[in-house]
This record gives sequence, C-alpha cells and structure tokens, in this order.
Amino acid sequence: MTSFVLRRQMTIEWGHCDPAGIVFNSRYFEFFDTGTWLLLGTALDVPPHKLAAAFGIVGVPLVDARAEFFKPAPFGATIEVASRVAAFRRSSFEVEHKITLAGELAVQGSETRVWAVRHKDDPERIAGAPIPTEVVAKFG
Amino acid sequence: MTSFVLRRQMTIEWGHCDPAGIVFNSRYFEFFDTGTWLLLGTALDVPPHKLAAAFGIVGVPLVDARAEFFKPAPFGATIEVASRVAAFRRSSFEVEHKITLAGELAVQGSETRVWAVRHKDDPERIAGAPIPTEVVAKFG
Amino acid sequence: MTSFVLRRQMTIEWGHCDPAGIVFNSRYFEFFDTGTWLLLGTALDVPPHKLAAAFGIVGVPLVDARAEFFKPAPFGATIEVASRVAAFRRSSFEVEHKITLAGELAVQGSETRVWAVRHKDDPERIAGAPIPTEVVAKFG
Amino acid sequence: MTSFVLRRQMTIEWGHCDPAGIVFNSRYFEFFDTGTWLLLGTALDVPPHKLAAAFGIVGVPLVDARAEFFKPAPFGATIEVASRVAAFRRSSFEVEHKITLAGELAVQGSETRVWAVRHKDDPERIAGAPIPTEVVAKFG
Repeated sequence: MTSFVLRRQMTIEWGHCDPAGIVFNSRYFEFFDTGTWLLLGTALDVPPHKLAAAFGIVGVPLVDARAEFFKPAPFGATIEVASRVAAFRRSSFEVEHKITLAGELAVQGSETRVWAVRHKDDPERIAGAPIPTEVVAKFG
Repeated sequence: MTSFVLRRQMTIEWGHCDPAGIVFNSRYFEFFDTGTWLLLGTALDVPPHKLAAAFGIVGVPLVDARAEFFKPAPFGATIEVASRVAAFRRSSFEVEHKITLAGELAVQGSETRVWAVRHKDDPERIAGAPIPTEVVAKFG
Repeated sequence: MTSFVLRRQMTIEWGHCDPAGIVFNSRYFEFFDTGTWLLLGTALDVPPHKLAAAFGIVGVPLVDARAEFFKPAPFGATIEVASRVAAFRRSSFEVEHKITLAGELAVQGSETRVWAVRHKDDPERIAGAPIPTEVVAKFG
Repeated sequence: MTSFVLRRQMTIEWGHCDPAGIVFNSRYFEFFDTGTWLLLGTALDVPPHKLAAAFGIVGVPLVDARAEFFKPAPFGATIEVASRVAAFRRSSFEVEHKITLAGELAVQGSETRVWAVRHKDDPERIAGAPIPTEVVAKFG
C-alpha cells in the first residue's frame, strides 16, 4: 500500500441518482475513474490529460474493476472519495477507492490498470510496459 | 422536411431514470444522438462508425440541440424515437426527433449538425463543407 | 434577467468525453441541471435536496431545454458554468446557463422549469402553482 | 449455476464511448443492471418495473459488482450480453454477465443483489428476506 492518498469531496447530484433516490451504481465507477486520473496527475505532478504524452504511454486502460456497496448515498449527500495505489506490479497497478459518507465507509472499490504503450510490431495493438521506478517512487 | 424516417423502439431502463422515477433529461439527448447516427447510417447505407471514412468528413458535430418535454416516461415504458432530417442547408442540417409513448408525443427535439472536414490550412481545426447532393438525395 | 448568478468551476473528466475527445453533448444538460439545483439552493438558502419539502412543491420539472455549442471542451479543460434565472413567469421560470472556457463562451443554454405541486383533485398528477413572491425576491 | 440465460444483442453507440473510442467502463455496469432486470422480468414473467409490487419487495439492491475487461468494444461493434443467476443464497443472489464481441469474451462481470423488503420495525430501513422457492424454481 503506497502512502499518497488523493481525497476529493463531492456532493451527490440529482442526475447521479436512480428511482430509489440514491446514486446509481455505474456512477461510482465514474467517480473511481476520475479519482485515478486525479491521483496520478497529482502524485506525478502532470495534469491528467498530459500524462500520456509526458510518459510515452497510450494510457492506463482498465482490466478489472470492482465495488462493494455498504451504504447508499442520496441526493444532496456529501461524500469523500479517497484514492490510492494499493500495489504496483511490473506493468500494472491496483488503485483502491474508499468512499465515505458522514464518516462511515459507504463504498469500497478497486481498479486494476495497465501501464500501456503501442505494441512495437503492431501500432494498432497496445501492450503493457514496465512502470518506471521514478513513477513508483512518487507514490511513497 | 425530408421523407426518410428512422424509427427505433426502446424500453426505458432503471438507469435512465432519476429520483422522480422518470427519464432524466440528459438521456433524451443521448437518444437523439443515437437516432441521428442510425438515421444517417440507414439512409446512406453505411454503418454509422464508417460514415466519416466513407464521406471524407471528421464527423457531424452538434452546434445546437433542444427538446420540449410534454409527458414523462417512467421505468419500463416503451417509447418510439422517430428521427428525420428536417432541413438540409449548405454545410449543415437539422434533425428532428419525436418521441412517442403510448401513441402520444412525449418529447420533441431537434439537433443542428455540421458536415465537417479538417480545415485545409490547419488540420487542428474543423470547418463546414458543402453537403454532397448525392447525400441529400438519399433522404428523399 | 435576475441578478443572482451561481458560478461553478469544473474540470472536464475523461468520462465526460466522447471519441472526439470532447465533452459529449448530453453531459452539458447534466451540468445545467446541477447548475439549476445549486442556483435555487443558494439563492433560497435551502440545500437542493430539501427544496421540495421547504416550499411544498414536488419539484421543478423541466419542460424545455436547449443549448448552443460554440467551442468544444476537451478532457482536462477547466470550465465555468454560470447559471441565473432569466425570467420568472406565473408558475414557471427560465434558467440561463453560460459555460466559459479560457474566458470565451463555449456553450449557452437555457431551461424552462415549472414550480410544480400535486394536483389537488388527483395526487397522481402534478400541476403548476404560482411562484411565491418571496421566492422571486431572493433572486434580486 | 442456474440454466436460464437472458441474451441481449446491442450495438455500441457513440455516446457509450470515451476518448479512446471504446466503451467507457461505467457503461458496462449499466448494461449489467439492465441485463439483471431483463433476466428477472423474463424468468419470472413479470415486467421489470412490476417486480417489486408483484413480489412484495422494495427491489433488489446491489451490494457487490465487478468486471474483468478482456477486449475493448469500439463504436459500432455488436455485442451480446448474456446474463444468468450464478447462485441463489438465502436472501441474496449472484448474477453473472458475459459480454461477447465477434464470438469472443470481451467482458465478464458479476453482481450480488439482495432480495429486499422494508424492515418490519423501521420502514425507513430495508432488510434481506428469504427468496421464495417458487422464484428460485423459475430459473431452472
């Protein structure tokens, strides 16, 4: 578990919610995606939309995402999304997201992402590349 | 008003709806967008994702969208989205979308889109181009 | 045109954008919806999710929405959404939304909404009700 | 693993896709949600929006969702979403979703949902209830 944590406060919007009056599940995966972009951008000190160019990657495509839902968040609720890298592997990494509501854990999720470059023999394909040690070092 | 009409039946999904239990407004603009792609693809006999390559355009960017909401559509409702080109202009066109629910008009909308190409002096910019007469002819 | 303006700064997220790399049109209607809730909540000094209970309404359903798109907003762009009530009518009101990007107008939109209550003879239906003068007064 | 499988063919829309030109991850969780509603509605022979009333439940809230992404689906791709109940437990069940693209597995996901009723001592809360044996029997 790395030590750098990106915390974002959000207020639940009408449009995030379903007929039960609570955040529709797919929205949490949007919140996770944004959490990861902000985490990488902040830790690496590069705006999220410039990460690909700065590191010579095509992006950090998602290969696995999951969430457990403990407590529903209604319209108007204030939540905090805390995102951190749980583990770096050779060419992939896992991001953990904890969403709290009134101090209690509401949703816990994780994403596995690949440090991806164009395949050297076929630019139509992408392939995992080793994550640079200086990247890993920035997450503490 | 051209004569070719693209009709699509849809069932309203849980995730389309807001806490009032009815389709959230932004979803209608997704339905319109899809209606336009299907209308163009069907009238021009080219799959939507191949239209740009087939006609040497970058796409048909939206410059104006509007909708009037007459009747809410709840979870489980079956709607029909009827899309047609209301008018062709030199390098833009207007698409009209009528959504009916149980035979009654529920939503009426329109989109104005540009027949867009890369600017010849600056490939970073896009510019309107004349809509080919053979394109217009396909809409009747 | 009332004088109270609600301004919100936002950064465009990856998930807001379409294959052209710019905000997908339906997202702007989400931004407008949130702008209206925040505008009402702030001007009336009641959290958005408590407006219905505070004013004895069922909500402020949308009957018309429109937008003109002048300038695309890419992933990572910082925008400002400025929302204000353009006009109050007896039982409806119009909200104007101006989205700026790097100081230039990128999108301009409007929404017409109804001050809606349960119909007195049929609680399944909703009806427009006169907007209280003290509500109108809060918008300057 | 129960034997009843709900299969749905879909074409990927422009609005489902992100700047990489492929389905944005949160959309898959929308597809799963719809797959579950259609699966329950079809197996139980009750339209999805009438399931709650028909079975005296408040719904089937999600407590866990996950997906593995094997192959990206671009704009215009035709996919099949195959949904089935992987396991029934006392008051919860697991739904497995397999999404194929050109005959190959593109995404595999699962959802854990609760058969939920109003808590008998506190109607503000919900609680799991035993899934009726006649419900389980319908899934083969």
